Amino acid sequence: MIGFFDSGIGGLTVVKEIFKEMPKYQIIYFGDTLRLPYGTKGELAVKKFSEEIVNWLIKKDAKIVVVACHTASCIASDHLRRKFNIPIFEMITPTINEILKFPENKKIAIIGTPNTIKSGIYEKKLLKKNKKLKIFSLSCPLFVPLTEEGWINDQETKLIIKKYLKSLKNIDVLVLACTHYPLLEKEIRKIVGKNVRIINPAKVLAKELKDFIKKNTDLKKGKRHQFFFSDTPYNFEKISHLIFKEKIKIKITNSNEL
Amino acid sequence: MIGFFDSGIGGLTVVKEIFKEMPKYQIIYFGDTLRLPYGTKGELAVKKFSEEIVNWLIKKDAKIVVVACHTASCIASDHLRRKFNIPIFEMITPTINEILKFPENKKIAIIGTPNTIKSGIYEKKLLKKNKKLKIFSLSCPLFVPLTEEGWINDQETKLIIKKYLKSLKNIDVLVLACTHYPLLEKEIRKIVGKNVRIINPAKVLAKELKDFIKKNTDLKKGKRHQFFFSDTPYNFEKISHLIFKEKIKIKITNSNEL
Repeated sequence: MIGFFDSGIGGLTVVKEIFKEMPKYQIIYFGDTLRLPYGTKGELAVKKFSEEIVNWLIKKDAKIVVVACHTASCIASDHLRRKFNIPIFEMITPTINEILKFPENKKIAIIGTPNTIKSGIYEKKLLKKNKKLKIFSLSCPLFVPLTEEGWINDQETKLIIKKYLKSLKNIDVLVLACTHYPLLEKEIRKIVGKNVRIINPAKVLAKELKDFIKKNTDLKKGKRHQFFFSDTPYNFEKISHLIFKEKIKIKITNSNEL
Repeated sequence: MIGFFDSGIGGLTVVKEIFKEMPKYQIIYFGDTLRLPYGTKGELAVKKFSEEIVNWLIKKDAKIVVVACHTASCIASDHLRRKFNIPIFEMITPTINEILKFPENKKIAIIGTPNTIKSGIYEKKLLKKNKKLKIFSLSCPLFVPLTEEGWINDQETKLIIKKYLKSLKNIDVLVLACTHYPLLEKEIRKIVGKNVRIINPAKVLAKELKDFIKKNTDLKKGKRHQFFFSDTPYNFEKISHLIFKEKIKIKITNSNEL
């Protein structure tokens, strides 16, 4: 099985893209709702939580793990790769590669949570590869609570998207560097216009994972997907319906039991 | 000194009301930004965190502690009163008493975070005292991130307040059961109209504390207020200016060191 984890429900938008690319593979998901948000936790805590969850996913028969959370990808993926003998996929590396695919795209905007933006991880990695890039980083703290309310197409959301993004002018690329943001992609597209290349890291990751799996065929196929959370996620029915257009059955496993 | 704690910056609106009522007393504040939000933590964790912080506040010379956080008030105040020999004030009890002051006010609306609302604490306590009350509970998850952006008078905020509160019709009382919400009181007033009695628990608590202190005069007076946080609070300069209209100097003390 393919294991996924996130601090909450955001990683479900990653699962959605995996379902699109590889509908036949069975997945298991763990959302650590009890201990969210990871973004404001210390490094040690995020590494510890991630390690506990990956251990648990492996016990549940995961053969590959996807860190479906930008914060944990940024802080814990190297640690996880050292600790575990299975392939660990994360959000940052494939996104960086995707951004760099078109060298004529010089003006790159990164939007994410305050903590992803504060970490400066995208700037650091991008400028290391190409010093000529101009990178604009912008945190949009209201996007997560707006999507968690399920207010995807609401007038209030449109106004707030406009307000946050109005400072981004003449950009070539816009990276949705938070797993919640793809839910707002349609409205974001209307604001930035049709000429901007919008990158949804989940899509890029799904393609990378598909290529990898072609060479690793011993993964379990089937439809018995499992979704675990360490606490009941807020407004879950509405949000999961927005993501999957169908009902998702979840189980609650306290993270103290990991 | 009077000690205050909260999971973040919300408790500063409580400090503000204390400054208004008792400008001469010295205060010390601890905001546990590293471990916020308390609202989604288990009961044991919130009790443990609260106990650690009260211990720390006492070491720093606090003689009275105010639990300036609705979640911790609801979960941990009885525990703290058993553990510590100093007066513990909290948000719920004085608010309940204030609501019940006017028996002709029968329709009571409580607005708060999803977790305060889910706990049902106000309903339980109110109905125990008066079964004839009609209580409407409503969570407004976007109010916290909106105030933390500092968008107090923005058009987007006004629309969102309207959207949340439109279901509240013909109420007599509206309780702002989250320490962030008083920042939006002016706009909330415009929506609910001038005849609704809006209760800001911080104001009620400040009056109660003032009465108590009249009989306990050994508290330190002075202006050397101290504000500690376990992690740098997001957008602090803007928010603290909105609350106090002046600059606040803060210190960061990791909660691991409590």
